[in-house]
Amino acid sequence: MKIALAQLNYHIGHFEQNTQKMLDYIKQAREKGADMVLFGELATCGYPPRDFLEFRDFIHRAEASVDRLREASEGIAVVVGSPSVNPIVDGKDLRNSAYFLYDKKILGVAHKALLPTYDIFDEYRYFEPATEFEVIEFKGRRFALTVCEDIWNIANDNPLYTVCPMDHLKAQGCEVLLNLSASPFDYAHASERIRIVQANARKYEVPVFYSNHSGAQTEIIFDGGSLVCAANGDLQDEMPYFKECLRVYDLEQIVNEPHAHKENQKDKIELMHNALVRGVRDYFHKLGFQKAILGLSGGIDSALSTVIATRALGPENVNVLLMPSQYSSDHSVKDAEALARNLGIHYEIMPIKRPYYAFEHVLKEIFEGTESGIAEENIQSRCRGILLMATSNKFGHILLNTTNKSEMAVGYGTLYGDLAGGLSVIGDVYKTEAFEMSRWINRDEEIIPWNTITKPPSAELKPDQKDTDSLPPYEELDPILYDYIELRLGPKEIIEKGHDPELVARILRLVNINEFKRHQTPPVLRVSPKAFGMGRRMPIVAKYLA
Amino acid sequence: MKIALAQLNYHIGHFEQNTQKMLDYIKQAREKGADMVLFGELATCGYPPRDFLEFRDFIHRAEASVDRLREASEGIAVVVGSPSVNPIVDGKDLRNSAYFLYDKKILGVAHKALLPTYDIFDEYRYFEPATEFEVIEFKGRRFALTVCEDIWNIANDNPLYTVCPMDHLKAQGCEVLLNLSASPFDYAHASERIRIVQANARKYEVPVFYSNHSGAQTEIIFDGGSLVCAANGDLQDEMPYFKECLRVYDLEQIVNEPHAHKENQKDKIELMHNALVRGVRDYFHKLGFQKAILGLSGGIDSALSTVIATRALGPENVNVLLMPSQYSSDHSVKDAEALARNLGIHYEIMPIKRPYYAFEHVLKEIFEGTESGIAEENIQSRCRGILLMATSNKFGHILLNTTNKSEMAVGYGTLYGDLAGGLSVIGDVYKTEAFEMSRWINRDEEIIPWNTITKPPSAELKPDQKDTDSLPPYEELDPILYDYIELRLGPKEIIEKGHDPELVARILRLVNINEFKRHQTPPVLRVSPKAFGMGRRMPIVAKYLA
Repeated sequence: MKIALAQLNYHIGHFEQNTQKMLDYIKQAREKGADMVLFGELATCGYPPRDFLEFRDFIHRAEASVDRLREASEGIAVVVGSPSVNPIVDGKDLRNSAYFLYDKKILGVAHKALLPTYDIFDEYRYFEPATEFEVIEFKGRRFALTVCEDIWNIANDNPLYTVCPMDHLKAQGCEVLLNLSASPFDYAHASERIRIVQANARKYEVPVFYSNHSGAQTEIIFDGGSLVCAANGDLQDEMPYFKECLRVYDLEQIVNEPHAHKENQKDKIELMHNALVRGVRDYFHKLGFQKAILGLSGGIDSALSTVIATRALGPENVNVLLMPSQYSSDHSVKDAEALARNLGIHYEIMPIKRPYYAFEHVLKEIFEGTESGIAEENIQSRCRGILLMATSNKFGHILLNTTNKSEMAVGYGTLYGDLAGGLSVIGDVYKTEAFEMSRWINRDEEIIPWNTITKPPSAELKPDQKDTDSLPPYEELDPILYDYIELRLGPKEIIEKGHDPELVARILRLVNINEFKRHQTPPVLRVSPKAFGMGRRMPIVAKYLA
Repeated sequence: MKIALAQLNYHIGHFEQNTQKMLDYIKQAREKGADMVLFGELATCGYPPRDFLEFRDFIHRAEASVDRLREASEGIAVVVGSPSVNPIVDGKDLRNSAYFLYDKKILGVAHKALLPTYDIFDEYRYFEPATEFEVIEFKGRRFALTVCEDIWNIANDNPLYTVCPMDHLKAQGCEVLLNLSASPFDYAHASERIRIVQANARKYEVPVFYSNHSGAQTEIIFDGGSLVCAANGDLQDEMPYFKECLRVYDLEQIVNEPHAHKENQKDKIELMHNALVRGVRDYFHKLGFQKAILGLSGGIDSALSTVIATRALGPENVNVLLMPSQYSSDHSVKDAEALARNLGIHYEIMPIKRPYYAFEHVLKEIFEGTESGIAEENIQSRCRGILLMATSNKFGHILLNTTNKSEMAVGYGTLYGDLAGGLSVIGDVYKTEAFEMSRWINRDEEIIPWNTITKPPSAELKPDQKDTDSLPPYEELDPILYDYIELRLGPKEIIEKGHDPELVARILRLVNINEFKRHQTPPVLRVSPKAFGMGRRMPIVAKYLA
């Protein structure tokens, strides 16, 4: 028997396109002699559909897609994820289902039992978990059909759950494990995914076919990396990251002559970089945009974001504005120009002096007698925001935000100024990681001017300003932020790691009191296990460590 | 036996203040001869604590608060909600618990079984539901202790749930039902709450003591309205809305001589207005701010928001900027000045002409040969945003946003311009409701100039502009928005109600494609059953009806 994995880039709510794409891949799989083709979790509607699931019309459209796929299943089994209506009155309205379609019939439906409801996931908001499990017989073999998280509680070792679907399906004599996933990227996830698939194969002594999404949906990036694993735990294949792909596997060969296969390379910085490129590209294309605009300061964050944007969209689609003020150093403009030349992108220089003075004039009377400070610094940043947004509005660009995760964390940025934009490119990349990534980009040739990488970071909003005037060095700051944000340690535990107590208190306070800013920043491409955005939900008027 | 209900305004994460407040109320209750005092759900940490619950340090502090309250329970039972650690390895880490403390001991703990995970609620993200229930004996009576939603599945009639805690507790012979709630306001909720409490009383033939939070936590407003109900379903008392309150009730009297009591008045517009006043006040005070700034255009939205702000903070704490452009009509400034005088608030006039021209000058070259349009309109709006934010930054004000729900829905507003602010005052009030509320405010005297209410709405960003240039009249728009947002109807169902198919398609598309704007707008005070914000979670790169 030949089993095809189709690792596809779906578009949320784009039923017509998702269905047509799957129909095309069914055709390809059939041409390649496949007996079965696996798509992804909730493939009809895309993942995560979020509260669109509460619209009955949306569910009807998903059902209509399943119908069309069923009609196309003549002679080939089509295994596809879609939301389905829960026929039982008690409990949530919907189930997160996987359909096994064959010869225009529904041969079986499996419902997801383990519903991730943490971090970016909200599945129990919508779905009733399955409590019953049944193997599906096809061409004389017993298949265990599961959805994503269902295989993440092997032998009940995951403290989040009390149910283990595979225990039931194994008891029914399943011979092959199929899993439809929508498992998002973070820099640590691909290894974990392989570990889980191998553990399932070994524990239940079955080969595993694991089909993931590829492509990004706003902040969530699916990396693909679909897997085939033999019953002895030997990896048979890991499909490529961040692209669509169809591959056909011979089940008999995997059962009878499994071989050990090499995994894809997993360099953290390279993976993050590639994820960000995919994330930017899909954000634009799924919204129907081609062109980006960014503000280029000569600093490392805007340089790195511009490189990523250029790789995602092509140099012809990236425009940058250089907007010096009286406080900008000479090298700022020079470094920014050098980068633009290296990338072959279009740039304009627009000094902000005139609008800045105009605001100073209007505010003169009420600002009389006050000392120049944050208000004045923010005006500069917001003048740049206006110029970028005006250009973006005029020419149909999307403004990309260039704030890094360290700045996002401590609120080092101006709302409606440098925190503006449609999408945050590196908002989940700590400053120290931004340095690493920039050096990695420059590994063969200077793309980002070395001066941009080596000079001390500065917002250049007042004379001789340095980031270290108000923040500790990033080598000191980032580990504290990591302990608090990723590890969710308390102040005591962080101090015990050897950090200065006053500094820890100050940093944690900054993180917490700046929640109001993060509430209004663009969606952040998620590349770490704990990104700002939908996976980290914090109150604004809170008085914890604040 | 005397039972006290303490309906309090907690502050998320402010353990010290919440605990001290409860200690004070224990003292008051004791002085009034109470045998027992009921606080709210998760009262130690405030509601909703959101992802702070994932910080072990946060949970430890909540446990320490419970300890302090236990120490203070000599001679009086203290019933208080707090998160607790789930001792069982399988399942979520925490439980949403209610402690029954007496004479320095824990007499019993009840855990919440029905965990709302819809709209603004995320409880299954954190908590393991209870599956066991036990009555608590105190002074010879059997008490059923429940948490909020636990009483919202009477006799299993709520399709969301499969468990009914009171069925178990009734079987154990409970004589009195205690409920600790954190049940947020919307204009329809208070009646529903009374209906549920009465239905529980009648069904289980027990008196009910229901204690709610009062006060706002960012966008969520708790209205109080705590309830006491006799076993026959007769309401004994409904505590006031939107304020803290302690009242002591005689259980014997309620058992032996129940009387029918009048409910509080429930006028929709008045309730919404009072909720918004509470919401603005608590946002400022919990963040440690006193002073607000708003842009006053002469239109109804900014006028209404300013009235609410003035009632929340006092006229001495409200400052407004009038920022006319070349397109502003004469009456705009006049109407705005009249409102400021009526309210006794400080205002400044700052024309935006100069900064606008400065931007025009900087952009002249690249805008050459293009037609004036959205880009130019947005610059005006953003110049106002800068002036408001600069003033706010300089003097420590919070900028209040004045966009209404109809505009929020269709994206009729400028990001970083009129969509800026720390809090949206009327973002959950449709334009037609804003008119109603303004007329209601003017019921006895002209507070908002009548001209502001009666003139045709206009953004005044180009000559003779009217809202109806690009939108249908609000009387036509708002019902379509309500059907789509509140009722989640599909296009077909909305058209069947008699609306023009093309208009419906256009409006629904506008709602969906403007999700990117709502992602970056301030938190919206929630007064309806479906507000923009944490209770309505939508993808940005979606292609559903878009």
